[in-house]
Amino acid sequence: MDTTKKTIIVFSGDFDKVMAALIIANGAAAMGDDVTMFFTFWGLNAIRKPKKVKAKKSFLQGMFGTMMPRGVKKLGMSKMNFAGMGPWMMGKVMKAEGAMTLQQLLDAAVEQGVKLIACTMTMDLLGFKKEELLDGVEYGGVATYLGEADEANVNLFI
Amino acid sequence: MDTTKKTIIVFSGDFDKVMAALIIANGAAAMGDDVTMFFTFWGLNAIRKPKKVKAKKSFLQGMFGTMMPRGVKKLGMSKMNFAGMGPWMMGKVMKAEGAMTLQQLLDAAVEQGVKLIACTMTMDLLGFKKEELLDGVEYGGVATYLGEADEANVNLFI
Amino acid sequence: MDTTKKTIIVFSGDFDKVMAALIIANGAAAMGDDVTMFFTFWGLNAIRKPKKVKAKKSFLQGMFGTMMPRGVKKLGMSKMNFAGMGPWMMGKVMKAEGAMTLQQLLDAAVEQGVKLIACTMTMDLLGFKKEELLDGVEYGGVATYLGEADEANVNLFI
Repeated sequence: MDTTKKTIIVFSGDFDKVMAALIIANGAAAMGDDVTMFFTFWGLNAIRKPKKVKAKKSFLQGMFGTMMPRGVKKLGMSKMNFAGMGPWMMGKVMKAEGAMTLQQLLDAAVEQGVKLIACTMTMDLLGFKKEELLDGVEYGGVATYLGEADEANVNLFI
Repeated sequence: MDTTKKTIIVFSGDFDKVMAALIIANGAAAMGDDVTMFFTFWGLNAIRKPKKVKAKKSFLQGMFGTMMPRGVKKLGMSKMNFAGMGPWMMGKVMKAEGAMTLQQLLDAAVEQGVKLIACTMTMDLLGFKKEELLDGVEYGGVATYLGEADEANVNLFI
Repeated sequence: MDTTKKTIIVFSGDFDKVMAALIIANGAAAMGDDVTMFFTFWGLNAIRKPKKVKAKKSFLQGMFGTMMPRGVKKLGMSKMNFAGMGPWMMGKVMKAEGAMTLQQLLDAAVEQGVKLIACTMTMDLLGFKKEELLDGVEYGGVATYLGEADEANVNLFI
């Protein structure tokens, strides 16, 4: 068994949960582990490009696309969101404490070789096209995830 | 160590989270893995029979029972529920994309031999009786769960 | 591989999720397992002292501190909270069913030797000082968590 691999399913698109996922991923990568983050459902919002990208969608997929946040800078919190004040407050204390922003954590993960996989099945459902997601992201379904998880000794669902 | 077993605690009763759990369970079962889903707290709603079943309950348990959804067709979403519009929208895009419904995913899991265990402790709390839950469901507590998890190489809490 | 260790990240500060975490932790400890609970983000609320403790904080940290619940007796539910009625209802059915309260579950975990670790990074962000958290709690960051998780065969994120 490979004890140096970790997988994290990022189901949530909440600021705080994505932050937790990225901190664990970066920590494990810094300790020499292979890390795979599998973004599915609302978690896909964390790896969207910040700007709108034209893509062919059904009406409902277009609605999902418009209503959901584009990228880590737009995520809301799971608690104390206060109509968007929560992430601003959290950003303030993060800055004051010298903590990395979500964007910096995401960049660090990529630099450290954390593998980012977008769930193709939920992309189809929510109407996300590859050109809307960050460059360098890989693509896969549940079989891809299970293959990665079988090689890992820590598998989290966030 | 048995690398062909997976366990999923289905704590959430949200449409989207139950869907994720069922997709992982079906995927693993299709790849030949033993899969155990352990339904607890709100997750129990996913394995309720759709019709009301008479059962002796305390007043508060009756309230819980009445307010909570009966079965996968009645689950709300964790995000963008829009007073029930969310699951309808999701159902629409799932149909358009040819994805399986929650009911079909649940049926497939049963057909593939996924073991469904209802948490007896939370059943007692919320006042769920065996006759209210789907036929074929097994029953157990935390010791049952831990016994299953000890044999598995992937254990998720959803 | 040590099959007798379990870790649980308690990210959520919801009554029901903390309850699930404590039940699993107590169950595993009762079966002879080593158990580590790693409290981070809103989960830290579960291990706050019930009374206000004076501590030096920034304005925003003070706001976080004031708005967040102090200890297990003040936690809200993830579903059906009903402005605080939910935990009361749940407390009522728990009492009627002879179930342990959150406080009793927490005490039992400590008595059984479950290791409680507070995440120092989120403590810094949210402005929690050690004197505000329960006595006996240990402190650590993501490296501490990963060290524990590498020795465990079941790792959950709740």
